[in-house]
Amino acid sequence: MTTADDRQAFHARLLEIGKQRYHDKHPFHAMLHSGGCTTTQVRAWVINRYYYQSRIPMKDAAFMSRCDDPDLRRAWRSRIEDHDGDVEEGGGIRRWLRLAEAVGLDPTYVASTKGVLPSTRFAVDAYVSFVREKPLLEAVASSLTELFAPRIHSERIAGLLEHYAFADESALAYFRQRLAEAPRDVEFGLAFVLDRADTREKQDAAAAALAFKTDVLWSQLDALYSAYVSPGRIPPGGWDGTEGVVREPRAREAAE
Amino acid sequence: MTTADDRQAFHARLLEIGKQRYHDKHPFHAMLHSGGCTTTQVRAWVINRYYYQSRIPMKDAAFMSRCDDPDLRRAWRSRIEDHDGDVEEGGGIRRWLRLAEAVGLDPTYVASTKGVLPSTRFAVDAYVSFVREKPLLEAVASSLTELFAPRIHSERIAGLLEHYAFADESALAYFRQRLAEAPRDVEFGLAFVLDRADTREKQDAAAAALAFKTDVLWSQLDALYSAYVSPGRIPPGGWDGTEGVVREPRAREAAE
Repeated sequence: MTTADDRQAFHARLLEIGKQRYHDKHPFHAMLHSGGCTTTQVRAWVINRYYYQSRIPMKDAAFMSRCDDPDLRRAWRSRIEDHDGDVEEGGGIRRWLRLAEAVGLDPTYVASTKGVLPSTRFAVDAYVSFVREKPLLEAVASSLTELFAPRIHSERIAGLLEHYAFADESALAYFRQRLAEAPRDVEFGLAFVLDRADTREKQDAAAAALAFKTDVLWSQLDALYSAYVSPGRIPPGGWDGTEGVVREPRAREAAE
Repeated sequence: MTTADDRQAFHARLLEIGKQRYHDKHPFHAMLHSGGCTTTQVRAWVINRYYYQSRIPMKDAAFMSRCDDPDLRRAWRSRIEDHDGDVEEGGGIRRWLRLAEAVGLDPTYVASTKGVLPSTRFAVDAYVSFVREKPLLEAVASSLTELFAPRIHSERIAGLLEHYAFADESALAYFRQRLAEAPRDVEFGLAFVLDRADTREKQDAAAAALAFKTDVLWSQLDALYSAYVSPGRIPPGGWDGTEGVVREPRAREAAE
């Protein structure tokens, strides 16, 4: 068993991974939050990030499919509910599609996941596979990037509201809602990992799982940057900047 | 069943995918073959491409693990033998490590796969998962990028020999050997796919599998380009340009 000191040192180690590797350090986010993105770049982010959102409940179902403990499944289930919601109002995925509409994209096109960059798919699919295949401790540890998410969501809400006319509460509802959901999820996941990682070997595995997840996030932004910022070379099959565009980004005044 | 005409049209469709999407169109290859790469860029390519080589026999084993036909397993088995070889002399993987030595890298470092770009891992692992999970027809179709490989290998041998002092027959043995192996593999795989894709639906699935595989290859070069050419931002965990470097690239005169 770890001592209290060990537990605290391990917690600090996990936080340090976020400081070193979380994708809030990626220059694409600075561009996005400061108003430096073109409409095409914002749309490309919305299209590609949708793929990530769409796979999260599949990832959580893969996790639950491997839990034989009803308590753990019960605690985890709300993640799927958060993303999928109910038939009428939907959840996080449908809120993401409201953002797609706000930037002038056909939500049906976005939901089709056509045009998603192959590198985005590979990174996101690697996350789903990881959670399907690795020990439960590592699967939970890989979810702990949520520790670092609230700050990026807050910055994003403020930055988008300040710099982009399409940004209003409806368009940004996804992020607002995650600010409420993420702390509850991460509190559970963090306690689970701190409790179960009771040997150095397990701590190393959990830390590696969290680092892996930061790679998954970083890789998506690198792909986006490479295709739509610099060198700006769209790979075969990637969104061409026009498909699925149905109108100009919504102006804030016109928002309901 | 397809008619002979259908078969020919389907074959042409597969070749067209190569013309449109094979990674010989990626600017990194033009740089590499024309002598435009720095030593660091060549080393980064050797390190990252090693990860692909190292996973090919695992991919082929995943395929064979799903074949209940001994004839098919027998025909496929040589692919693993080609890459792994025998204990003393090794195979394609060990030939790749000779290239690593020629460019001044510690082969043990390269074989550790430390420093491989996360996006490279995600793309290559996606290929292994694809072959493990998809119908056999699609798994075989995804191997048909070998149809387009001989030309790129020939260009590579000529271009490296002409432009880089480290390039000699020992360093390039991997590519020379693949020129002999690939046509046999692809003859079998192509006949398999043309025979089994006997409905439009199966043809579509096989064509999509081949396009998927071109994405796997392209994504690796995009990752390399993004990290080491433009914008030249190495992601967290990626090779830093110095680790594993043990000497200058070998000069041809010094080659045994």
